Amino acid sequence: MRIDIITVLPELLESPLSHSIMKRAQNKGLLEVHLHHLRQWAVNEYGQIDDYQYGGGAGMVMMCEPLANAIEHLQKDRKYDEIIYLTPDGERLDQKIANQLSLKENLLFICGHYKGIDERIREHYVTKEISIGDYVLSGGELAAAVLVDTVGRLIPGVLNDETSALFDSFQDELLAPPVYTRPADFRGWKVPDILLSGDLKKVEEWRYEQALKRTEERRPDLLK
Amino acid sequence: MRIDIITVLPELLESPLSHSIMKRAQNKGLLEVHLHHLRQWAVNEYGQIDDYQYGGGAGMVMMCEPLANAIEHLQKDRKYDEIIYLTPDGERLDQKIANQLSLKENLLFICGHYKGIDERIREHYVTKEISIGDYVLSGGELAAAVLVDTVGRLIPGVLNDETSALFDSFQDELLAPPVYTRPADFRGWKVPDILLSGDLKKVEEWRYEQALKRTEERRPDLLK
Repeated sequence: MRIDIITVLPELLESPLSHSIMKRAQNKGLLEVHLHHLRQWAVNEYGQIDDYQYGGGAGMVMMCEPLANAIEHLQKDRKYDEIIYLTPDGERLDQKIANQLSLKENLLFICGHYKGIDERIREHYVTKEISIGDYVLSGGELAAAVLVDTVGRLIPGVLNDETSALFDSFQDELLAPPVYTRPADFRGWKVPDILLSGDLKKVEEWRYEQALKRTEERRPDLLK
Repeated sequence: MRIDIITVLPELLESPLSHSIMKRAQNKGLLEVHLHHLRQWAVNEYGQIDDYQYGGGAGMVMMCEPLANAIEHLQKDRKYDEIIYLTPDGERLDQKIANQLSLKENLLFICGHYKGIDERIREHYVTKEISIGDYVLSGGELAAAVLVDTVGRLIPGVLNDETSALFDSFQDELLAPPVYTRPADFRGWKVPDILLSGDLKKVEEWRYEQALKRTEERRPDLLK
């Protein structure tokens, strides 16, 4: 998979993209992430990419022309499966959307800043709008990093058995059960006996019950 | 506000914390973020901080002892308002939680990795569990960066009028209305006339209608 990201803050994305599973995915040749600084397509020599909003009010808006030119420049080299704008009023990201996106070949992400991007870019270029949650960030860059991570780790071959995504929360509509490791007794706080029993069938049953119980208590909406 | 973060990947957090509004908040003296590498509290000279999970199955679990020692070490210097574990089965972050947290003085974040942290740490130390959304990340670091950003920008004095949070999506339970900037006609795509009218009252009405319409179309759940 190849992901292109248009941003005014490429440097913010450097460390998240060069560590952990994202690094591994890129080293394995399964994922390429390319950052494109929007200022390359600025409308003047001062590097302008934003302007005051029509109708007045606080906050700058990212202009049509730099974004349109950036998108069209990148489209010359490849066809994108989706052009995704990260925005709090987009479709809420969940594991299902991440699974679907993990099967694509070319994705283009647009990171907003300030009050957002000119609506006409959303109408005429963007094919999908995604929100990582019901809260506001100072820019789309962290949302892009989250999307790269959730999608990237699901690309076949990125995770090995040790880190398999199959038993994660949400893959089966249930939250994950509690986990424990050594020591069995830490300051008097003990690991549940059943996990020490060696009876794998009982362990599996216990885990399923715990996952169900946790989901009922914390996220009954997932069971509907 | 001071935020301490316990992590096995402090380097992943470097660039998100040193740019944009997070940088501004720190430069203004309104926010301090301190990263603590969990390996300082490893259980042996090999730097071990995780182990196989009891009951078998793929994926390592972060051990009690390093985490307990890290937390207790940090607690010697200050009392934390909340000790927050970032986990997909936690309470879903929203703007209301971010607003509440922005009023605290000392927060401690714990980033999980692999299969997560030993349940006993969650039971005995963690006071709040937060999820940034219904999807799985390769670690808690990006979730921590998102939480620092959403909370940090709400600390009084961090944002100026230009970037005021008051008109963002979710602050008033509505999505934000569309925004436009120059030119008024871009490739034949025009800005709505009302925004060019100069009639501020009508502009405000239009914005409210658009916000309501967008919320009804995209997120009717917010209006309930």
